[in-house]
Amino acid sequence: MSVERLAVEPWAVRERGLDIEALGRTESLFALTNGHLGLRGNLDEGEPRGTGGTYLNGFYESYPLSYGEKGYGFPEDGQAVVSVTDGKIIRLLVDDEPLDVHRGRLERHERHLDFRTGVLERTMRWTSQAGRTVVVRTRRLVSFEQRSVAAIQYEVEVEGDEPVRVALQSSLLANQRQPRARNDPRSAAELESALEGCLATKNDMRVVLAHRTRNSGLAMAAGMDHVLEVHDHPTSLTQIDDDLGRVTISARLEPGEPLRLTKVLAYHWSSQQSVEWLRDQVDASLENALAEGFDGLVAAQRRILDRYWEVADVELQGDDELQQAIRFALFQLFQAAARAETQPIAAKGLTGNGYDGHAFWDTEAYVLPVLTYSRPELVRDALRWRHDTLDQARDRARQLGLLGAAFPWRTIHGEECSGYWPAGTAAFHINAAIADAVRRYVAATGDERFDREHAVELLAETARLWMSLGHHGADGAFRIDGVTGPDEYSALVDDNVYTNLMAQMNLLEAAAAAERHPDVARELRVREDEIAAWRVAARNVHVPFDERLGIHPQDQDFLQHARWDFDATAPEDYPLLLSQPYFDLYRKQVVKQADLVLAMFRRGDAFDLDQKRRNFDYYEGLTVRDSSLSAAVQAVIAAEVGHLDLAYDYLAESGLADLHDLRGDSDNGLHIASMAGTLAAVMNGFGGLRDHGDRLAFSPRIPPRLPLLRFPIAWRGVRLIVEVRPGEATYRLADDAPEDASVRITHWGEEVDVRAGRPERRPIPAAPELRRPLQPPGREPRHRTTGEGD
Amino acid sequence: MSVERLAVEPWAVRERGLDIEALGRTESLFALTNGHLGLRGNLDEGEPRGTGGTYLNGFYESYPLSYGEKGYGFPEDGQAVVSVTDGKIIRLLVDDEPLDVHRGRLERHERHLDFRTGVLERTMRWTSQAGRTVVVRTRRLVSFEQRSVAAIQYEVEVEGDEPVRVALQSSLLANQRQPRARNDPRSAAELESALEGCLATKNDMRVVLAHRTRNSGLAMAAGMDHVLEVHDHPTSLTQIDDDLGRVTISARLEPGEPLRLTKVLAYHWSSQQSVEWLRDQVDASLENALAEGFDGLVAAQRRILDRYWEVADVELQGDDELQQAIRFALFQLFQAAARAETQPIAAKGLTGNGYDGHAFWDTEAYVLPVLTYSRPELVRDALRWRHDTLDQARDRARQLGLLGAAFPWRTIHGEECSGYWPAGTAAFHINAAIADAVRRYVAATGDERFDREHAVELLAETARLWMSLGHHGADGAFRIDGVTGPDEYSALVDDNVYTNLMAQMNLLEAAAAAERHPDVARELRVREDEIAAWRVAARNVHVPFDERLGIHPQDQDFLQHARWDFDATAPEDYPLLLSQPYFDLYRKQVVKQADLVLAMFRRGDAFDLDQKRRNFDYYEGLTVRDSSLSAAVQAVIAAEVGHLDLAYDYLAESGLADLHDLRGDSDNGLHIASMAGTLAAVMNGFGGLRDHGDRLAFSPRIPPRLPLLRFPIAWRGVRLIVEVRPGEATYRLADDAPEDASVRITHWGEEVDVRAGRPERRPIPAAPELRRPLQPPGREPRHRTTGEGD
Repeated sequence: MSVERLAVEPWAVRERGLDIEALGRTESLFALTNGHLGLRGNLDEGEPRGTGGTYLNGFYESYPLSYGEKGYGFPEDGQAVVSVTDGKIIRLLVDDEPLDVHRGRLERHERHLDFRTGVLERTMRWTSQAGRTVVVRTRRLVSFEQRSVAAIQYEVEVEGDEPVRVALQSSLLANQRQPRARNDPRSAAELESALEGCLATKNDMRVVLAHRTRNSGLAMAAGMDHVLEVHDHPTSLTQIDDDLGRVTISARLEPGEPLRLTKVLAYHWSSQQSVEWLRDQVDASLENALAEGFDGLVAAQRRILDRYWEVADVELQGDDELQQAIRFALFQLFQAAARAETQPIAAKGLTGNGYDGHAFWDTEAYVLPVLTYSRPELVRDALRWRHDTLDQARDRARQLGLLGAAFPWRTIHGEECSGYWPAGTAAFHINAAIADAVRRYVAATGDERFDREHAVELLAETARLWMSLGHHGADGAFRIDGVTGPDEYSALVDDNVYTNLMAQMNLLEAAAAAERHPDVARELRVREDEIAAWRVAARNVHVPFDERLGIHPQDQDFLQHARWDFDATAPEDYPLLLSQPYFDLYRKQVVKQADLVLAMFRRGDAFDLDQKRRNFDYYEGLTVRDSSLSAAVQAVIAAEVGHLDLAYDYLAESGLADLHDLRGDSDNGLHIASMAGTLAAVMNGFGGLRDHGDRLAFSPRIPPRLPLLRFPIAWRGVRLIVEVRPGEATYRLADDAPEDASVRITHWGEEVDVRAGRPERRPIPAAPELRRPLQPPGREPRHRTTGEGD
Repeated sequence: MSVERLAVEPWAVRERGLDIEALGRTESLFALTNGHLGLRGNLDEGEPRGTGGTYLNGFYESYPLSYGEKGYGFPEDGQAVVSVTDGKIIRLLVDDEPLDVHRGRLERHERHLDFRTGVLERTMRWTSQAGRTVVVRTRRLVSFEQRSVAAIQYEVEVEGDEPVRVALQSSLLANQRQPRARNDPRSAAELESALEGCLATKNDMRVVLAHRTRNSGLAMAAGMDHVLEVHDHPTSLTQIDDDLGRVTISARLEPGEPLRLTKVLAYHWSSQQSVEWLRDQVDASLENALAEGFDGLVAAQRRILDRYWEVADVELQGDDELQQAIRFALFQLFQAAARAETQPIAAKGLTGNGYDGHAFWDTEAYVLPVLTYSRPELVRDALRWRHDTLDQARDRARQLGLLGAAFPWRTIHGEECSGYWPAGTAAFHINAAIADAVRRYVAATGDERFDREHAVELLAETARLWMSLGHHGADGAFRIDGVTGPDEYSALVDDNVYTNLMAQMNLLEAAAAAERHPDVARELRVREDEIAAWRVAARNVHVPFDERLGIHPQDQDFLQHARWDFDATAPEDYPLLLSQPYFDLYRKQVVKQADLVLAMFRRGDAFDLDQKRRNFDYYEGLTVRDSSLSAAVQAVIAAEVGHLDLAYDYLAESGLADLHDLRGDSDNGLHIASMAGTLAAVMNGFGGLRDHGDRLAFSPRIPPRLPLLRFPIAWRGVRLIVEVRPGEATYRLADDAPEDASVRITHWGEEVDVRAGRPERRPIPAAPELRRPLQPPGREPRHRTTGEGD
């Protein structure tokens, strides 16, 4: 899609006109979800479309994984999100011509998703081949308040002098066929017709269909009901079969007398309840939704979003495009997590079927660190989901001959689903990311109950994993061999610095948690000698360092390897994973995504500033950013070491990834972790926020062109507002803080007590003069020139 | 099967009785093949059976390879041997009861495969439930002379006083259903009904059926004809349909008046010829076979085998069981290679469908080094096959971003079929094994034509591969990172010593070959600077050595890794690949099969004796021999460093692998490379033969219990006979050597000219006193006590 169709607005995504080629992407951008139920932004009439999609978080189909040659412990079953019964479809017949953007004349078309209302609006003016003109306005929402409910309001009005007969067909449609990309390992598995019809009922304009998945045995019910407002006396017909419920309304519309159809949708699913019970729940939810009415649902939506923006909004003055990107990111994080509750937050949220709907380390390593400081209770829910999957993780560890818990690289239900084991099974660092998220949540909230009921166990079981994964070498050093770090262009390496440092943190946090709650530790059979062993291992964790170059190798052998021949690599060869064999990527110095640089962010306390500068310079020259998880982390460290312009470029790359479809795959769904990364680039990068240990530290610094950055931080029940200007920062508590509230932070190393009603203003040291580091040829980030986006 | 059923005989495998549970294994042991056509040793009546099988070398079906997650360069299609139309089946009805070993009473049963006749004989006496007794004697052969032909003679005689009506049904049967093991990655892929019927003709008792494979598009025709000798006037009926040709003969047999049916079979296949042409070829081959008659085919078989034994027989006195195993191995090598001609020698020969019928490095690294010194023209054929696949290998190299040729880890037709890439794609050492086989063949034969037409190109293209795989590090050393050596319990390692040393040899041999034939080199665009670069790289190949332990690490990082916890590993956990995850095997010190020890064999010139001893001791403690390729190599080096008893134990383990089904998988086919290994254990181990460079060196030494080892070596047109006795060795030229013939060898470092008619006798130094090294607990080889096997 030409980017020009997207308007730059502070609080919305707006598309002017309609780019049919880009439908897949706009379906992702306009997807509505509350973390429980997700509707892709398909056109109301269902077609043309990129990918239709209606998703229920946690609702998946399983299928056997195949291998050219199989090995012990390779996962036997995959899990893939399935698109459930589609209730979005409302098709219009004008006289006897279908409203189809391919036909007739589309004279106006606009879609608009407002981050404050949470409502997707569409307006269009369309003239049929026979010359009838209609104006259609639809509004769609997925309710944050009633997590099972979505609603659509469809208004159609005819123009001209003559009345026109129109028919509206509102459907519930299961087992829609989907087009599928060939040869892209990231596409959803072929799971057509995953749903088996169990039950179909109708009553007036209400239809409920229930289905069951063939392999995973999950049951679901979907229902729709309608309220029709029209001058004419319409006729209506309701039809059902296993995979289709359809209400057809026919009416004669006078010009100026619109027809308005309100459609409410409800979805329930379960692994245990009967379809009859699910049907009852759907009927109940439909009643609730009808009782609220469309306006009631809209009002609740607004109320909930207002509360979110109050605690989450990040203001960046001086770059309207990035301001929009930041708010888009904040909105999407909320959409992904708001009502996820007992289910995971997937890499694509519920905006598409990319990565088969799986959750990865993205959640704990990227999404949760941001949510911790705005909506910590959503972090608690997400970590409780991990805790719920501990049994699967313990089983997996046992299968791998390890102790403790080995959380899956990718999953929906908790079992390992990664069929590509060098970057799946061996990417044990996900366990430390979970531990880090646990640590951060507890530090930021002081949530004692979570600490006792979930944190100790998660930390202890992951610590046990590290103990069995690592070994003390002849020199006493604690080494972790044969694992894969974040950089997926290396695999099965010894002593990956990121992994080792994160494991160190994990071990120490487990020891501290066990000592905080000795009774809980006892229940988990954590004994004193085990705690002592964790501390010994942590103290002796091997962190390779190359004295000659004065830098950290990404792993023990990394610097001995040949450098990737970037000069011989053509622009169309990127991303390299689609054009180069893994064996060759693995054995050369080429970095897919921040790895050592991520270590300098998450374990910044383990590096001094000089090391950070040298390391950053070195890895910049090798990092090709073939993952969407990279640019934001590079932005954070670029900002820290003083490359403010480069940080700004990376922030823009991260922020515009989906809005500008920079990776060309936004049609599969949005990059939720990259959204979180965008916020990290702002808050941890320019805002300089660090949260090692149990106190917040800030070393903010923004480019002179940006007059103001402002963001809130939720910390132990109060909100700290951080305002950064060129040359100066102000810290204050939000107005609703209790009178005696205070937060102790550091500003560029200086301790500062921020008390209620007493903003603290501090100067910011000037940025050093540094040479901009070089990236691999052709992989430089786009330079964001002054004035762009203003 | 109880081993006791197998008789120890010097020139045959004989089974007394019938072990129905062990049919799969005896089908492999009694398989008949000439390297072109293979028949498993199924019972004539077809059932019961382990696996039915009739194979044509090179005739395969392709199928899409699946991956849990796919990556660039992963092979898209697999190839699997298919069992073609089965002509072995002759079923007998006695009155109206089928002769079925499950029914009635089997009063005598014996099968007997003689290595000198190449004929499988079966005799049995069976009494039906109704009390009729028949004696059946069948003989079966796959002709070495007429490679498309097999023949069966079936004699039945009734006992008792009464005549008995019998019916014989002789079939050609396509698309037989096969039972298949679940969850064993080594089993043949499911390729039932791979054959599509194209043509079926009959004429009297002759039937020809033609089929085509569905995916690979290969065509084949199979035919049978019969000669019947019987007193009675029999009736006969010939029926055909797409997948079945059947001749039914009914006769009334008087006691003492046997019926004899001779069945001749012929097979032809092609990727290009029409099925009509193939049908014609089959008819012609059947005519030829009928013209020879069964006795003529038997006589030719004997003649050809007599010639083979004259140049190949290895005598080992003092251990009858091992003598049998050695001859069995020699017979199987001949069966696998004799008429392979333009096709590969697969890991299982044509004795079973294990490993999908693929050829691996086994051929060049194990089989060809043995054949070189007995039937070098078979080595030439096998290397010509590799040469024929150079285009596929060049394509593969290009796909992997490499230069030269990258031969496939496993294949039938030349394309890479390994879906498990860490031990497939990355096992580049196969290329050096090919180069080594080329080098050895040229040195042993002086075959100038092969040298010019095949050797230079094979050596140059593999040398180019190594140049692009390796890189000169900062210290100038030539390093090869991220590859997999022979030990499949390590993968993607840096500087695997075996690989590096073999690459070094490959580079030097390529340089020498290019300089021997500058005109050929020019055609291949090998320039002087390229040759110079090969030499520089070879000179600087990095061979890691650990000064502290005084040993070579298997690869750069091997010794830093944790040792596998052998004490915690239960006997039933072996082979580890079926019970442990690869990620964990890879990152620990545990060795599946000789790797560094293999380097000390194939590149023995790169180690001194002290290093060999220390290395051998160290790796003995880590090597679990989960591959059949290991024991023989350990035997070779054990013998060299002076552990004669241990060498003897390993020789026995290798030699009895299939005869005693030590690995439990002989039902999938015989371990052809392990057979070759057995011969290496004898000739290179006790015989002390080494062939680095262009002169043969011997350092023989045998255990005192073995009075004599005698073996011939074909060397540049003459045959050198080596006789080793405890304490002394004799070298002489075979009697047919020209009068002026001589061969210069070394004996324990002393140069010896062996001239025609002048045997050279030399003393052998006594074995040193050494402590027997320890193997991982429970993985010690079975100790072969004195007297066993005598």
